[in-house]
Amino acid sequence: MFRPRAADGPGEPARPEYSNWGRWGTGDEAGAANLITPEKVLRALRLPERGRAVPLAQVIGDRDAPSTRHGYEHFMLRDAGDYAAGASAPGGFKAATDYVSLRVHGATTHLDALGHAWYGERLYNGFEERTVRSSGMRRLGIDKAPPMVTRGVLLDLAAAAGMPHLPAGHEIGAAELEAAFGRAGVTPEPGDAVLLRTGWIRMWRADREAYLGDRPGIGLEAAEWLARRDVALVGADTSGVEVIPWAPGTVCPVHQFLIRDCGVYLLEFLDLEELAETGATAFLFLVAPLRIRGGTGSPVAPVAVL
Amino acid sequence: MFRPRAADGPGEPARPEYSNWGRWGTGDEAGAANLITPEKVLRALRLPERGRAVPLAQVIGDRDAPSTRHGYEHFMLRDAGDYAAGASAPGGFKAATDYVSLRVHGATTHLDALGHAWYGERLYNGFEERTVRSSGMRRLGIDKAPPMVTRGVLLDLAAAAGMPHLPAGHEIGAAELEAAFGRAGVTPEPGDAVLLRTGWIRMWRADREAYLGDRPGIGLEAAEWLARRDVALVGADTSGVEVIPWAPGTVCPVHQFLIRDCGVYLLEFLDLEELAETGATAFLFLVAPLRIRGGTGSPVAPVAVL
Amino acid sequence: MFRPRAADGPGEPARPEYSNWGRWGTGDEAGAANLITPEKVLRALRLPERGRAVPLAQVIGDRDAPSTRHGYEHFMLRDAGDYAAGASAPGGFKAATDYVSLRVHGATTHLDALGHAWYGERLYNGFEERTVRSSGMRRLGIDKAPPMVTRGVLLDLAAAAGMPHLPAGHEIGAAELEAAFGRAGVTPEPGDAVLLRTGWIRMWRADREAYLGDRPGIGLEAAEWLARRDVALVGADTSGVEVIPWAPGTVCPVHQFLIRDCGVYLLEFLDLEELAETGATAFLFLVAPLRIRGGTGSPVAPVAVL
Amino acid sequence: MFRPRAADGPGEPARPEYSNWGRWGTGDEAGAANLITPEKVLRALRLPERGRAVPLAQVIGDRDAPSTRHGYEHFMLRDAGDYAAGASAPGGFKAATDYVSLRVHGATTHLDALGHAWYGERLYNGFEERTVRSSGMRRLGIDKAPPMVTRGVLLDLAAAAGMPHLPAGHEIGAAELEAAFGRAGVTPEPGDAVLLRTGWIRMWRADREAYLGDRPGIGLEAAEWLARRDVALVGADTSGVEVIPWAPGTVCPVHQFLIRDCGVYLLEFLDLEELAETGATAFLFLVAPLRIRGGTGSPVAPVAVL
Repeated sequence: MFRPRAADGPGEPARPEYSNWGRWGTGDEAGAANLITPEKVLRALRLPERGRAVPLAQVIGDRDAPSTRHGYEHFMLRDAGDYAAGASAPGGFKAATDYVSLRVHGATTHLDALGHAWYGERLYNGFEERTVRSSGMRRLGIDKAPPMVTRGVLLDLAAAAGMPHLPAGHEIGAAELEAAFGRAGVTPEPGDAVLLRTGWIRMWRADREAYLGDRPGIGLEAAEWLARRDVALVGADTSGVEVIPWAPGTVCPVHQFLIRDCGVYLLEFLDLEELAETGATAFLFLVAPLRIRGGTGSPVAPVAVL
Repeated sequence: MFRPRAADGPGEPARPEYSNWGRWGTGDEAGAANLITPEKVLRALRLPERGRAVPLAQVIGDRDAPSTRHGYEHFMLRDAGDYAAGASAPGGFKAATDYVSLRVHGATTHLDALGHAWYGERLYNGFEERTVRSSGMRRLGIDKAPPMVTRGVLLDLAAAAGMPHLPAGHEIGAAELEAAFGRAGVTPEPGDAVLLRTGWIRMWRADREAYLGDRPGIGLEAAEWLARRDVALVGADTSGVEVIPWAPGTVCPVHQFLIRDCGVYLLEFLDLEELAETGATAFLFLVAPLRIRGGTGSPVAPVAVL
Repeated sequence: MFRPRAADGPGEPARPEYSNWGRWGTGDEAGAANLITPEKVLRALRLPERGRAVPLAQVIGDRDAPSTRHGYEHFMLRDAGDYAAGASAPGGFKAATDYVSLRVHGATTHLDALGHAWYGERLYNGFEERTVRSSGMRRLGIDKAPPMVTRGVLLDLAAAAGMPHLPAGHEIGAAELEAAFGRAGVTPEPGDAVLLRTGWIRMWRADREAYLGDRPGIGLEAAEWLARRDVALVGADTSGVEVIPWAPGTVCPVHQFLIRDCGVYLLEFLDLEELAETGATAFLFLVAPLRIRGGTGSPVAPVAVL
Repeated sequence: MFRPRAADGPGEPARPEYSNWGRWGTGDEAGAANLITPEKVLRALRLPERGRAVPLAQVIGDRDAPSTRHGYEHFMLRDAGDYAAGASAPGGFKAATDYVSLRVHGATTHLDALGHAWYGERLYNGFEERTVRSSGMRRLGIDKAPPMVTRGVLLDLAAAAGMPHLPAGHEIGAAELEAAFGRAGVTPEPGDAVLLRTGWIRMWRADREAYLGDRPGIGLEAAEWLARRDVALVGADTSGVEVIPWAPGTVCPVHQFLIRDCGVYLLEFLDLEELAETGATAFLFLVAPLRIRGGTGSPVAPVAVL
């Protein structure tokens, strides 16, 4: 599975021992979504017993929903006020329409495209970074990410720690993950979507500055542990999934490794509170990104079906 | 089920004989999504046999994907060009980020909120139109629409007619729908998502002006036929689902009836070509709108699972 | 000049004793800009002796320039990074292009349209408020405001008070204005643009929350004093020009009076620091709003020529 | 004035014989605006005899005003419809506010920044292209362009040709310019703003496709003729000022030469119809770009004062 560094181009930094480049073909742009095989899909569809769909996305524009607070606009192009002020309604028909603008990686719950993060001059699977320009991503854009229908696993790390939320700067390690899987009664399987509840979303309501500062999350150890278990997606109720502060001398090392080296999807700004209250640990998980041509990610409305 | 006109307010136009106001409580904002019961969800999850997820959304920003051609912008906030031009990458980390703006009802595949269309001074279920202002929809916004996990039914009307697409201005009638269900070997059931393939999407590639002019779709007869069978959602590969031209003296009568009187969801600008090629007629259908607070609709990426 | 209340419509609140409705004709949409007569223009053009043009606008997007901090976006559509990443440059031609989005009344230095503020159901000069809808202002939009070339007068009230800035909540009164004119050696004349330097812009750099809280400015007394002297425009280095807090029971009374009753223009978020340093008190003043059809105001770059 | 090629960097294409690099210092970012000296300003202020200000900008959002038809949005954030629908108005105060988005080089009358166009790896005056990134232009942005108060000269080339508009593809040559100056009774002087009326704006109303196709304008010969006469700005009633088609093998050669080599400003999409009707040929000209930090240009509302 490991391709020698020489293949990555002159001057290109060496990839770590574990990576998924070439695993699904040299032209692959779907990454770990390939692990969601038809059999995996069918097995996941058999999980629900209650027929209840739980939304995992934040409400966009809700003051109580975490975001970077900038980069979201909602404009009404027509509303009932216009009719109240005398606009005509031919045939009796009235309509309200609107326009939405958002910063994909800051405004709300979103899925990162596989070209969102990288190092050196190569994106995931060896695609050249020069394909990413002002006109968008010719490679690995979110339009290349398929809808994902798979098993979701909720690891409620805050509950496991007996805390409303994990502490700022707490690095979730491999042992903590392993214990959480055990507590959930679930064995990680290829193609899983692993959702980490840190409880950090509660910090937003308490202290917005703090929410966007140091935070709990996974570090490289846990990221590799998950990648080696072939999960397709890792999500969390934080901005970024990974622990901050990063290890000294590094910046977003988990993004670099999971996205660029492994093609594993990151899902950020989840709201896992309602799901956690159900007590569910394994369920049908659905996420279908908007097919934004050349996009670096997509706002999404993931769903757990119990 | 029918509430007398008097309840709708002074001067309010009479509702038609069939309507769903009050059916799920006076405060209900989910409408026909209530028909997707837990049992319905569980039955729908049993449908797939292949484990294949087929996307039904257009690619946003694709020149070959129908839209009103205005009201879509995609901006890169950072891209690889910046690094090529000398931007620093501390810790080796590089990232591409972007910003998306779109006119919800014109840019791409989207789901209408139940407050999107109305007549008189009342929205679906009797909510007052005055709740719809420049600040958004306080009632019946797309944030009130739950994720829908249900049975989807594809009615390939173009194939049934032996045409690449139904003719412009062709009104799909109740008998045509009934025959199409028969041809598909499916009986309509409460909570179904009925997807109508008119083939009209092909007109986009041939003649964009024509695509947005007269078009095939359902009229009031078919709309009532569907509503009386308790479908939760009607989708089509056109802008608007309903036939244009409208009957004389009316404007968007199907929107008025299905959305405002019945609380049935409309899903527009679908791309049903790949799904049609699979030959599937009944399948698991998923759509999860972005939870845009007070939004009149949402761009969506619906999925059929076979 | 005063039109009896009866003319303003049933139930319409009475206008104050002083107002300019009807003064320049019932169809007038230019308001006090009518006071800038050709003779006034020619006299103003004779004022400069140095030939120096001093910009009075803030730099849009500058962190040190006051704004409401939301509602401004600047996107590069193409930049040199694209060429560095390999974009072709046919004929050797390279170009950078961009896209700008802004909240007119929050992002930067701007001129209010005469339809921006009102009370009752009537805008300035009796136009009906119902002409102001989601599609824009059919009446009194900023596209109806002519370019203004007139005498500018700087009243440096902070310097007069011997303070870096007037205190929060300080209401500039008529006597203070009169003294400031005297200190400047200037007699107010019809058509003047009166610029008030409160020094409050310095608060932005010190404490952004405080900048947008209580602030110095004119109250109704000073507003009427200025209106009765037939000034065409009142500007200040604050958001809103008027003192906050407002008198008990009122909201933006100066906007209501100057804009709606008198048709006098308000110019906000000025940067008067460089101009103040020149010591100039009377000069040629230029402001030409973008001709935004139906706009409620325009970002502007006013200029003083000494 | 001419600096040897060696100074422009390795591999950099040679500049033409005439250029203004270094003329106003190696750090200069204002270019030919330096030619508008205080004396020039004072002389220009003496020109008007009528005191009439004529707007030269198009109305933004007007269907009859040329643009690329994309990249302009105007959203009302609050309007009178909201009050009609029941929004409260504390203290009686009502206000309409809005949000504007536009593509700077396509939506309307605009001034190009000196960093907007270049060739090789150097911008005007030798600044490195790598300073132009997704975050904007660190050098030569429109925030570096001062307000310009100078003499304007209108050359009505369409009238001179006895045509409603110059023909598509007509290259205005040096002799034609010289004759037009003679006809206007004006001798070009340093710091002038030369406005070329081609009449092409009329084509917009007749045939929008044609308007944006081949068009009349200046070629390199006329550009050099103007640059050697030290004009500060060249404007026209077209998109781009320069003739299309370009000479074989070139793309936007006039932009390359006037902006990048000479630091001369280009002003596009002017509406010169009203000005032409006045018969004025020399007048006070004012243009003050919005001070958009790092912007590639600015929508503007230039004014002629007669």
